[in-house]
Amino acid sequence: MMQRCRHRVRSVRVTSDESDTSESGSSETETETMRCVSCLESYESCNAGTCKECYEEANETEEELKRQIEDLKAKVAFLKFWSPIDHHHSRPNGPCFTDVVLVASSDENSSGFAVPVPAHKAVLVSRSPVFKAMLENEMEESRSGTIKIGDVSYDALRAFVNYMYTAEACLDEQMGYDLLVLAEKYQVKHLKAHCEKFLVSKLNWDNSILCYAFAHQHSAKHMLDAALSLITDNMDKLTKREEYVELVEKDPRLIVEIYEAYLSKQVNTAAPKDSSSKS
Amino acid sequence: MMQRCRHRVRSVRVTSDESDTSESGSSETETETMRCVSCLESYESCNAGTCKECYEEANETEEELKRQIEDLKAKVAFLKFWSPIDHHHSRPNGPCFTDVVLVASSDENSSGFAVPVPAHKAVLVSRSPVFKAMLENEMEESRSGTIKIGDVSYDALRAFVNYMYTAEACLDEQMGYDLLVLAEKYQVKHLKAHCEKFLVSKLNWDNSILCYAFAHQHSAKHMLDAALSLITDNMDKLTKREEYVELVEKDPRLIVEIYEAYLSKQVNTAAPKDSSSKS
Repeated sequence: MMQRCRHRVRSVRVTSDESDTSESGSSETETETMRCVSCLESYESCNAGTCKECYEEANETEEELKRQIEDLKAKVAFLKFWSPIDHHHSRPNGPCFTDVVLVASSDENSSGFAVPVPAHKAVLVSRSPVFKAMLENEMEESRSGTIKIGDVSYDALRAFVNYMYTAEACLDEQMGYDLLVLAEKYQVKHLKAHCEKFLVSKLNWDNSILCYAFAHQHSAKHMLDAALSLITDNMDKLTKREEYVELVEKDPRLIVEIYEAYLSKQVNTAAPKDSSSKS
Repeated sequence: MMQRCRHRVRSVRVTSDESDTSESGSSETETETMRCVSCLESYESCNAGTCKECYEEANETEEELKRQIEDLKAKVAFLKFWSPIDHHHSRPNGPCFTDVVLVASSDENSSGFAVPVPAHKAVLVSRSPVFKAMLENEMEESRSGTIKIGDVSYDALRAFVNYMYTAEACLDEQMGYDLLVLAEKYQVKHLKAHCEKFLVSKLNWDNSILCYAFAHQHSAKHMLDAALSLITDNMDKLTKREEYVELVEKDPRLIVEIYEAYLSKQVNTAAPKDSSSKS
């Protein structure tokens, strides 16, 4: 983010006639300009930022924060697991000690076969309370060693399992939606937050109504708020959209909530500091 | 670290007669002092730090770094495993899906029994190349599901296994030494660095010679450098120490290395900028 070098600690007092005259405190007839120790450009006193001491302190803070980041990154690298999927591909004969497979049931062909995704019960249990309940309570999945996951592609399932080992996922919009659905279903909060953040960054007027309906369906609060805010900022164009018409047909309560949010925003904007108007 | 609030962005120009007279650039007869927007104290131009723009930029950088730290902390929390040891204690009947046990062989009683520490092969393999070689190559340990660890207490072994799940260890000096030995033996680099950092923080003149010998024995470079530096700073007191006499007896080569480091330091201090003296 920051390109400017702020490690050179230098303070230069420049006077208009370039001569270093009297000590500070006494009256001077020339205009004084300071030179910034960070960008090294001169500035007038009205544009002063910090004193030297605070500048040095801020530098130390920045160094300290960067050290913390390095430590945390090393910790993440240590805690990250090799994913059994990658392991499987790179060393087909090496044992992974996996004790369960996940299967995308929608991927099954006519003979009921789909490519299984190997995993460790311990990892699934550690990352998801739903898998925990499923596997620790000797349910069918635990006995058979196969967990069938409905309504998901093989690619999404692979990415889902991979995330539980590495806390990393390469997202595009479709994958963001798919993984958010899985994250919500299996209560993998960290992944859900990751997908929401990504999808919010991709939010625009064209996808806002679909995003809003999706966020509603999968309890994605952050995404819901962002989509709702975008929609209520563009109410004049709302009723002209195809998705609006479809949603009125399919789930009119969601449309009602949009209007309620819009109304509430208008009231708050009209009288932001008048608390009596809220009652 | 930083106690001062640097979030109030404020720039105040104070003139000696407290009146805001002409615009910047023109000659003024009064002395100008600036007020630091961070600590809010006034300062003379000779103590100027940054301009306002750089101050604001630095603030943004700090906020951004703090956000990164929050993200990384969440990632660490997600990737951390529940340790099978804690799990074992809190829910004795719940399955952990562990597939191997580690035993501190020095803890075995007369009938050959020691309390086993349960673990997952997948975790051990993922954290240590030594365990990886041991478990993936169908050696005795992999077949029997028991790994015997020599010369270690049950407590140290427990802490060792726990670290591989959580990247956390509660250290005192003895535990720091014990875990460093295990980390070196099983090549768990992250733990080794963690122990070294802790032991360096506990380094003092009284333990410096023992630390130096220990660091040498277990290839702890960072600790070795720190101990050596402390010793060569106190050479006048060195030969009076009991540990010195013992080390001369036990491993005189280490003592030679101390003298060599001392000599090299003296030469460098005497002529720090004279490159010809090094050849």
